[in-house]
Amino acid sequence: VAAITMPAPLPTTAADRQLTTPFPHHVLSVKQFNRRHLHQLFQVADEMRTLVERMGSIDLLKGKILSTMFYEPSTRTQCSFMAAMERLGGSNIPVSIEQSSVKKGETVADTVRCMECYSNVLVIRHPEKGSVANAAKFAKVPVINAGDGTGEHPTQALLDLYTIREELGTVNGLTITLVGDLLNGRTCHSLVQLLSLYNVTLRYVSHESLRMPASIVQEVAAAGITQTEHTDLNDVIAETDVLYVTRVQKERFASVEEYEAVQHKYVVSLATLANAKSNMVIMHPLPRVNEISPEVDYDPRAAYFRQMKYGMYVRMALLATLLGHA
Amino acid sequence: VAAITMPAPLPTTAADRQLTTPFPHHVLSVKQFNRRHLHQLFQVADEMRTLVERMGSIDLLKGKILSTMFYEPSTRTQCSFMAAMERLGGSNIPVSIEQSSVKKGETVADTVRCMECYSNVLVIRHPEKGSVANAAKFAKVPVINAGDGTGEHPTQALLDLYTIREELGTVNGLTITLVGDLLNGRTCHSLVQLLSLYNVTLRYVSHESLRMPASIVQEVAAAGITQTEHTDLNDVIAETDVLYVTRVQKERFASVEEYEAVQHKYVVSLATLANAKSNMVIMHPLPRVNEISPEVDYDPRAAYFRQMKYGMYVRMALLATLLGHA
Amino acid sequence: VAAITMPAPLPTTAADRQLTTPFPHHVLSVKQFNRRHLHQLFQVADEMRTLVERMGSIDLLKGKILSTMFYEPSTRTQCSFMAAMERLGGSNIPVSIEQSSVKKGETVADTVRCMECYSNVLVIRHPEKGSVANAAKFAKVPVINAGDGTGEHPTQALLDLYTIREELGTVNGLTITLVGDLLNGRTCHSLVQLLSLYNVTLRYVSHESLRMPASIVQEVAAAGITQTEHTDLNDVIAETDVLYVTRVQKERFASVEEYEAVQHKYVVSLATLANAKSNMVIMHPLPRVNEISPEVDYDPRAAYFRQMKYGMYVRMALLATLLGHA
Repeated sequence: VAAITMPAPLPTTAADRQLTTPFPHHVLSVKQFNRRHLHQLFQVADEMRTLVERMGSIDLLKGKILSTMFYEPSTRTQCSFMAAMERLGGSNIPVSIEQSSVKKGETVADTVRCMECYSNVLVIRHPEKGSVANAAKFAKVPVINAGDGTGEHPTQALLDLYTIREELGTVNGLTITLVGDLLNGRTCHSLVQLLSLYNVTLRYVSHESLRMPASIVQEVAAAGITQTEHTDLNDVIAETDVLYVTRVQKERFASVEEYEAVQHKYVVSLATLANAKSNMVIMHPLPRVNEISPEVDYDPRAAYFRQMKYGMYVRMALLATLLGHA
Repeated sequence: VAAITMPAPLPTTAADRQLTTPFPHHVLSVKQFNRRHLHQLFQVADEMRTLVERMGSIDLLKGKILSTMFYEPSTRTQCSFMAAMERLGGSNIPVSIEQSSVKKGETVADTVRCMECYSNVLVIRHPEKGSVANAAKFAKVPVINAGDGTGEHPTQALLDLYTIREELGTVNGLTITLVGDLLNGRTCHSLVQLLSLYNVTLRYVSHESLRMPASIVQEVAAAGITQTEHTDLNDVIAETDVLYVTRVQKERFASVEEYEAVQHKYVVSLATLANAKSNMVIMHPLPRVNEISPEVDYDPRAAYFRQMKYGMYVRMALLATLLGHA
Repeated sequence: VAAITMPAPLPTTAADRQLTTPFPHHVLSVKQFNRRHLHQLFQVADEMRTLVERMGSIDLLKGKILSTMFYEPSTRTQCSFMAAMERLGGSNIPVSIEQSSVKKGETVADTVRCMECYSNVLVIRHPEKGSVANAAKFAKVPVINAGDGTGEHPTQALLDLYTIREELGTVNGLTITLVGDLLNGRTCHSLVQLLSLYNVTLRYVSHESLRMPASIVQEVAAAGITQTEHTDLNDVIAETDVLYVTRVQKERFASVEEYEAVQHKYVVSLATLANAKSNMVIMHPLPRVNEISPEVDYDPRAAYFRQMKYGMYVRMALLATLLGHA
């Protein structure tokens, strides 16, 4: 275990975010959110959960249209937003980007200016970092970033946080362990940035070559959060309240041998959980390949399928808030 | 004409299905249905027809979401379910499986567990036999099999049966002739299994190499149904009440010559119908390629386009029943 | 500037269209429309605009289903129709033609006969000229041509005309300049045919090899409209009320050199507009590639993004009219 000693804090930190900032118009980055925003959003998400469980859907966004513009596919995220919109009484236009004007050379800016003529809110995924924020400059209607390559996927982080809150009742005081590919996993980066608004302890478990980037570690440290790095999950499993698992991709390693040598260390099985708390939870942004054994699925601590349902409630809350109906 | 002599009946037959069995939770096979289920389903389908003709749609499933997960394309079946859901006041999420998590190595089980978080009912088509039944094990919400490779396509058989009932007033007492590829056509297999719940006579017309499989013939015989095999449609056309045509694919033959030698025998033209009854009907699961001449389309006995409309009513009835609103 | 001297008028002209003709059942060509139809349609479009601005959507087409059958992709047009239908309270079934029965050899006629079982109106785009009119023969429900190859795209011309009317208050008395590829642009052909129902002056600006086809020029002349041809936009920009820009495709030229030699002449920039009227408008059917400089986007005369919103209102008006609810 190596405690991370950090250089002097950077000027812009999570703590700097003013609590008086209004709720974002476009949702592009987790850095736009302060604790008041999150509190407000999650309270609406709680209401949405109650309403959906009781009635299936409501008419809050009747007459509103959400267009999902996915420049790279993501079934789970797209369907989650579509279900959220339907359950709010609104409508969806899923734009078939692959077979579209893009091929005729149209810029994302022009496609956005087109789709906003028909829509009340846009959800965009695009493989290039920064592209969604750029697209948002051309839109009068709210734009939600559903993933911009190595950039961010803010609604995933929001639903991760909401899952922790719903499963464990609070975020403060928890020890949260992130395991897998912490270098490339934008999900992890966004989540720890949001977590640094709370009073948590972070454990990072990964192969040496896949450690959390220094820039993220610095930001989190600047918020006064304790972070430690590990290569063995056994070191921290006993104290873990939330185990956040991500996929380790073969392609990230220099050789297949190197991958196979370490890969088993980051697979979560019932054996891994032998010393885990009885009330901890296991999360995963999904899709899961083999980093969580199927035997774990039936353990009540496996929260990764419930996580998707929380995601729908958070996205309902977000859509309702952005469109001024929450 | 060769009457089929069968070995001793198999233990599980259509007749064995208890009439007290509740309506299926998942719709995976025609074998789940007894005559009471069919009677109930078709009565609801009749009501749906009346309501759609009078009002276009109703609000019965308002707030419910159907997700269609098609691991292989089938425009007709997918659109039929979507139209059924819309006309019931519900919503659709058509999942773009081809460009999805499947490519990232996600199992069907995990995709099902994801989609059921957003949905109230799932319709799944998958190229592998047994895969939909397997997927249903992981779903709490009802799953409908929309075709599992060489397995079944139960809602096609249900709509075929409903079409016969609506077009001819009854199923009992009819002579039903199936022509085309009886070996590989899962549509034919499912239909004769359902028909064996009634008092019918079955005629099978096909090339020798494309005969109805022995296992199906045995099951049907066990239900006490008369079945005969033929190579010439002229042998049976005069007594036929329902002519069920299916496609003969070139690829099923050893050589193009062999295909061309027999293919014309199974093409239905106005000449074929010269000796047919005036109140018989011609059906086809569609798409039709050249096994029914376009000239037949304008004959009132051509029921294959009306068949699709009956399909929408049956699927409306099924969705309403499965979701407890019929 | 060369005034065009025309041969004797053709027998069938715009002026011949009887004002007593009922509103078309299928929308296949601009030639089906007379001024009374247009007046009626645009009045409904005005109402739609008011209703959408006030309420987002209405329940006029509740229970109606629109199926969009696009045999070649067109995101903009498909999404525009879908948004129009949703804002009328109806539902959409976007048919995935590419992965469908077409591959199994089904004719367009059969696919149409299938989809009309589920739908109340069909919108079809197909790469072959005449194919949509042919498909409409097999449909009892209204069919709208959303582009048939080198044929027509009538709803584009209708929305272009509505845009002129809304932006400038009237069509009569205007000078309308079309620039770009006038030979191959079906958009231009349909628009001038509709414009010839009004009292306008037409200026055609293009490379010699991309001039307006003689057949169109003849039809327009027969309606008594003044038309002139130019190679330099500067000749006519000062008197222009509507500048309708279309794309010049590299592939249309014999060599890249020839393309590059003329291409800059047809790019609209702020410099191009130096001598233009302050209340003229610039239109474009989109997608735009580089034929209008991005700097022009912020000029209030740039109407090409507003044009898409007008398009939604016109398509709402058309759907409501065809389905007997306007």
